Amino acid sequence: MISVKEAEKIIAEQIQLCSKESVYFQHANNRILRQEIKADRDFPPYDRVTMDGIAIDYQTYASGIREFPVQGIQTAGSPQQTLHNAEHCIEVMTGAVCPQKADTVIRYEDVEFIEFEGTKIARITIEGIKDQQNVHHQGSDRKSRSILLRPGRQISPAEIGVIASTGHVKVQVSKLPKVAIISSGDELVEVDAIPAPHQIRKSNVYTLQAAISDFGVKADHFHMPDEKELIYEELGAILKNYDLLILSGGVSKGKKDFIPEVLNELGVKKLFHTVAQRPGKPFWFGKDENHTVVFALPGNPVSTFAGYYKYIRPWLASSMGLEEKPPLIAKLGADYTFKPPLTYFLQVQASTDSQGNWIAQPVEGHGSGDHVNLIDVNGFLELPADKDFFKAGEAYPLMLFRRM
Amino acid sequence: MISVKEAEKIIAEQIQLCSKESVYFQHANNRILRQEIKADRDFPPYDRVTMDGIAIDYQTYASGIREFPVQGIQTAGSPQQTLHNAEHCIEVMTGAVCPQKADTVIRYEDVEFIEFEGTKIARITIEGIKDQQNVHHQGSDRKSRSILLRPGRQISPAEIGVIASTGHVKVQVSKLPKVAIISSGDELVEVDAIPAPHQIRKSNVYTLQAAISDFGVKADHFHMPDEKELIYEELGAILKNYDLLILSGGVSKGKKDFIPEVLNELGVKKLFHTVAQRPGKPFWFGKDENHTVVFALPGNPVSTFAGYYKYIRPWLASSMGLEEKPPLIAKLGADYTFKPPLTYFLQVQASTDSQGNWIAQPVEGHGSGDHVNLIDVNGFLELPADKDFFKAGEAYPLMLFRRM
Repeated sequence: MISVKEAEKIIAEQIQLCSKESVYFQHANNRILRQEIKADRDFPPYDRVTMDGIAIDYQTYASGIREFPVQGIQTAGSPQQTLHNAEHCIEVMTGAVCPQKADTVIRYEDVEFIEFEGTKIARITIEGIKDQQNVHHQGSDRKSRSILLRPGRQISPAEIGVIASTGHVKVQVSKLPKVAIISSGDELVEVDAIPAPHQIRKSNVYTLQAAISDFGVKADHFHMPDEKELIYEELGAILKNYDLLILSGGVSKGKKDFIPEVLNELGVKKLFHTVAQRPGKPFWFGKDENHTVVFALPGNPVSTFAGYYKYIRPWLASSMGLEEKPPLIAKLGADYTFKPPLTYFLQVQASTDSQGNWIAQPVEGHGSGDHVNLIDVNGFLELPADKDFFKAGEAYPLMLFRRM
Repeated sequence: MISVKEAEKIIAEQIQLCSKESVYFQHANNRILRQEIKADRDFPPYDRVTMDGIAIDYQTYASGIREFPVQGIQTAGSPQQTLHNAEHCIEVMTGAVCPQKADTVIRYEDVEFIEFEGTKIARITIEGIKDQQNVHHQGSDRKSRSILLRPGRQISPAEIGVIASTGHVKVQVSKLPKVAIISSGDELVEVDAIPAPHQIRKSNVYTLQAAISDFGVKADHFHMPDEKELIYEELGAILKNYDLLILSGGVSKGKKDFIPEVLNELGVKKLFHTVAQRPGKPFWFGKDENHTVVFALPGNPVSTFAGYYKYIRPWLASSMGLEEKPPLIAKLGADYTFKPPLTYFLQVQASTDSQGNWIAQPVEGHGSGDHVNLIDVNGFLELPADKDFFKAGEAYPLMLFRRM
């Protein structure tokens, strides 16, 4: 039996950087970027007007003049005009180029218009106009050719905006790994079946499929009966066709727990079996010669669930090239005792209080078979193996499995 | 001009509960549940063995007996057996039904097997066996017919597991609203174009499309030139076919800001225009007689972005029936001054520190045109209008727009 830390280390050694593929940027949301995105122009690309109003030469204002005949209108999307007379102004619209020889914009709210001998004149009605106000200067955000996004970023709406505005119709992202999710256990029947008294419906495979779809991965799923020959045959075929296998069930000490034995016979090298943790102690991890990585989790639903979020998700994220993120840390919301010398993944409902403290309230449930309890929680707080008593207010790592 | 609170209230009055539809549970991830999910059996449905080992009658153990002839094996998925002799045991596997007349399970690690005159005998090697240990009792998690999930829950992997295990092949969820995202502004060109010096590429519509896809909504997008006649025609057609319109641009005081005027002419009732906030002050909100709701946001990219997360996302969530969640609260990471009498949506990078505090570090950027800054932050901290000086450590609501 190894510690959680050792298990993490061994798994991290098996990270396999996915290859890349090119996708249309509109389909790249949630994907992991694998190229640099550079600015093809300055940001903003011109001295950009940020308020509807009039553009003037500030020196004229500074000399005391407050009334400016209107030369014309510079709308957004029209070529840059020039202020021909420093004592005149041009009406300008938000998003427009600031006219040449103008440098300062006064918003309409601070201007009134008068007519004098057929000429439209703008009169500034407030004092305190500042040089170059309401102009967003070319290149002030980012310079042309500067790197805006680096490989490893998970693309979200903000990145989509940057990718679009730099003209990247397609972007290089990590290819999605081919994932097989495999349940075993003769007690399992299909969701549409009426189970006999000694049977239950499958649920782990569907839970895992939904969880892994966060990354856009569409996993295939399989079910194997508790018969060694059949497992050997099916698992052998699956191994050849997938990058990642996630098994649920069949890894403990039961008479029909054939999975570790069969994986061994199929040439999948065991890298560890059993981790000092609850739930999920009989967790098996290995890799075959074709580099298919195999996570075989115990079949109790909470064990499978915690195993995915603790080990598989981080492995997948790293293999897809995702940049590292700092762990989330939360304060335990109530005193808690856990005596076995195991790392304990305590089910918690985490939320912020009115002071910005992140409080993880234990909602314990009835053990690793009680997956209904997972609907009342949003994370696991990781309590270390070398302590028995955990005081309210102490801070521990939180694995969050719902969106905030 | 109204306050942010008033704007929220007026928007909340326009929530329109979406109709329902039935989808296969495998496609229901991220959708909003609109029915109760009840347990069709007890959870667990039988006295479930939680360890591989032997099942005994505890009374026999209590009487001092430590050696139990093995009657047989009860595997997972096989019909319940009966312990015929209270001094015998049955080998049992995790997930199996606990045999009748047995009530206590001792795991293999605490048992050794011996052969005596052709009979296999299990000898318990430790003391301190507890009555009914390692048996997960029928109905101890939830009783048959009890309500496991209520309408309003956003379905996540944990809910998928519960829905599958209760045999719900299809579930009622909120129908996705029909959403149109509409940009305007003659300075905008397509992503694949080389912009002239006074032009920029579209990005807001793509950002909004990606943001709204969180709910599974596939929004259509449109672009309108700054010409009143054309806007009238196109917007009129769009209004007839969508439940929700999100406009970006054309709502301020510019000469070509025709949107409010055209919406008025098309019979869309203005519910407010301009909110005391930065960014996004010229925000326009209304509803037409066919109940299409119209959010018209200013076109500066950070204004559009903040407007979506502050107003549209909550409206959408409520209209889809999502249960209310407590707001996230974070501590401001550094002193900050903002003097205008406006609610300020400060761009921040929020994370937890080693003590479990949520710290929101200001990463200010260069105003509402600087959308590149959004890639360095994960949220907006909402600073109230009635204060100028905000001290590090003070707690304010956080709008998080990335996953933690």
